[in-house]
Amino acid sequence: MNISSQSGAFAPLQNDSFIRACLRQATDHTPIWLMRQAGRYLPEYRATRARAGSFMGLATNTDYATEVTLQPIDRYPLDAAILFSDILTVPDAMGLGLSFALGEGPKFAHAVRDEAAVSKLAVPDMDKLRYVFDAVTSIRKALNGRVPLIGFSGSPWTLACYMVEGAGSDDYRLVKTMLYSRPDLMHRILEINADAVALYLNTQIEAGAQAVMIFDSWGGVLADGAFQEFSLAYTTRVLAQLKTDHDGVRIPSIVFTKGGGLWLEEMGALKCDVLGLDWTVNLTRARALVGSSKALQGNIDPNVLFANPAQIEAEVAKALRSFGAPHVGAGTGSTHIFNLGHGISQHTPPEHVASLVQAVHEYSRQMRA
Amino acid sequence: MNISSQSGAFAPLQNDSFIRACLRQATDHTPIWLMRQAGRYLPEYRATRARAGSFMGLATNTDYATEVTLQPIDRYPLDAAILFSDILTVPDAMGLGLSFALGEGPKFAHAVRDEAAVSKLAVPDMDKLRYVFDAVTSIRKALNGRVPLIGFSGSPWTLACYMVEGAGSDDYRLVKTMLYSRPDLMHRILEINADAVALYLNTQIEAGAQAVMIFDSWGGVLADGAFQEFSLAYTTRVLAQLKTDHDGVRIPSIVFTKGGGLWLEEMGALKCDVLGLDWTVNLTRARALVGSSKALQGNIDPNVLFANPAQIEAEVAKALRSFGAPHVGAGTGSTHIFNLGHGISQHTPPEHVASLVQAVHEYSRQMRA
Repeated sequence: MNISSQSGAFAPLQNDSFIRACLRQATDHTPIWLMRQAGRYLPEYRATRARAGSFMGLATNTDYATEVTLQPIDRYPLDAAILFSDILTVPDAMGLGLSFALGEGPKFAHAVRDEAAVSKLAVPDMDKLRYVFDAVTSIRKALNGRVPLIGFSGSPWTLACYMVEGAGSDDYRLVKTMLYSRPDLMHRILEINADAVALYLNTQIEAGAQAVMIFDSWGGVLADGAFQEFSLAYTTRVLAQLKTDHDGVRIPSIVFTKGGGLWLEEMGALKCDVLGLDWTVNLTRARALVGSSKALQGNIDPNVLFANPAQIEAEVAKALRSFGAPHVGAGTGSTHIFNLGHGISQHTPPEHVASLVQAVHEYSRQMRA
Repeated sequence: MNISSQSGAFAPLQNDSFIRACLRQATDHTPIWLMRQAGRYLPEYRATRARAGSFMGLATNTDYATEVTLQPIDRYPLDAAILFSDILTVPDAMGLGLSFALGEGPKFAHAVRDEAAVSKLAVPDMDKLRYVFDAVTSIRKALNGRVPLIGFSGSPWTLACYMVEGAGSDDYRLVKTMLYSRPDLMHRILEINADAVALYLNTQIEAGAQAVMIFDSWGGVLADGAFQEFSLAYTTRVLAQLKTDHDGVRIPSIVFTKGGGLWLEEMGALKCDVLGLDWTVNLTRARALVGSSKALQGNIDPNVLFANPAQIEAEVAKALRSFGAPHVGAGTGSTHIFNLGHGISQHTPPEHVASLVQAVHEYSRQMRA
């Protein structure tokens, strides 16, 4: 499909602090955005979702997806927007039948549990994901250059978890049973997923995404050794196929493995620009391990946002000090993008997010003064 | 309460490989036991539980608790037994009202969520836990010296999670909200828990436990910094009060923090004998970091047991090789106790456990030959 032609010319970027920090260039403050920033904690999101009827009704409608993506940008001085979508759109396009039951997580009608089901898998036609690319272009236009737009996908392993389990899981018994007893089948799924994710992200870039993020939400449930073989190797395969430039502009890539802190050194060798970190990781240590080759993104506990503003500010200061002296001046250095260590909770008071963003901007400016 | 008098004289220990490995002494094979080895995957356990009527009916009845503790010892050549009980007996004795709804996890009738509830907490009278100590003595007698008996408790932090949440949790929102907004209350709960856990474990030792284990099942959900302040500091407080000897015999202590791999170096300074490791930890690295001061226990993924015996053997060999050359000869060295990285799944085929135990014994003997 021809995506570039529909994206047309976009407005120039006014706030490039997020992109600069991704590329390890100095900024006058530490940029901040929040995983799941367009979401249920915002009353305006809940209103749009009520109109859309369902989560997928929201995600598959260009106007709604544009509207909710911009809601947090209108409310807070965040430094990036992220496409409103789900990490499971790719297996849905493979024909597995994604649905979201009310109050429950995602479900697939056709879980992939045996050789026959695996043999039917293929990289999906990107036309089936046109609603995503249309949303990317629409959001990029609506942003009008205010902040950059991040596209994203689940990682090959994280997609495989849902594809085999058919839903969320406490123990990953089905997917790990396949991994340990039929590693050949698991590798086949992961190859297809990796190629599909690369194509999906590249098409998002063509549609207007200015950075892309790979969510390896379930990488951290793997054993040492299995992580490297079944998750990291396929993230590497995605990155090898990923566009790093589009229309002459660098497109940064971010890899976030929840629970992956033990493998930071190995992730430091990934061909990406930024590593996302959850709250268990010490930023001083992470910077020492990988900060010379990658920007770091993260990492306070989303539950910090249930404390009062003074305590939120204290935790922000702690995180910024833990990362340490900001990179200033010309050239590249070790840079930090502020975020939570996981998606924001639906129970978060919206005014606490305002305190968070303000604290990050003010304190990080002070550190540079 | 006078516990020692009721324990009387116990039979001499025939298989001391587990105790020796805890104390970093050489053994002719790598000892193995499994977290939750007395459990639902065994048909004989399900039969006893059906007779007992409920989980707490099982745990509070000395005869039933003795029966199920010995079931895996009768079926497999395991090198240690572990008291059949629950990690939440201590807050139950504090008056919080523990119950287990069918098919759900534990629940407390009286969750601890405000200053008034915290002010009512106190170290419980150990008489309320007499059923546990009676079970310890009964099991120790029934074991008749075949293998040592491990006693245990939840860690102060892990108990606090359940006490504040009132049940299991996905996001630990309530307990973390208290931690971040009222750290004074959280510290008060943890002080009481630590003193209660120390007294509880010491009384288990007096009743006949030959080693004790602290399960910090939820330490890994804490942020870096918060883990040290709210979990590790109180595990340290327990260990400072713990008996290291009883009746002239060394009583080894084990600390297991699920998801604690990032803090291994700090845990290496704990005053305990063994560190338990989950499957995300690389044994070579862990041995290099802490193996000179501690024995290591773990750590294959319980889901490995869903693969076939040949694949189980391959994973056993991988884990033993990852730990590396066994300590042999006189004096102390770096030792390994085989275990899973978490409790065994209720869906595990019992015959696969036989393959696991046999593989550990045979392969670890070969490594010493």
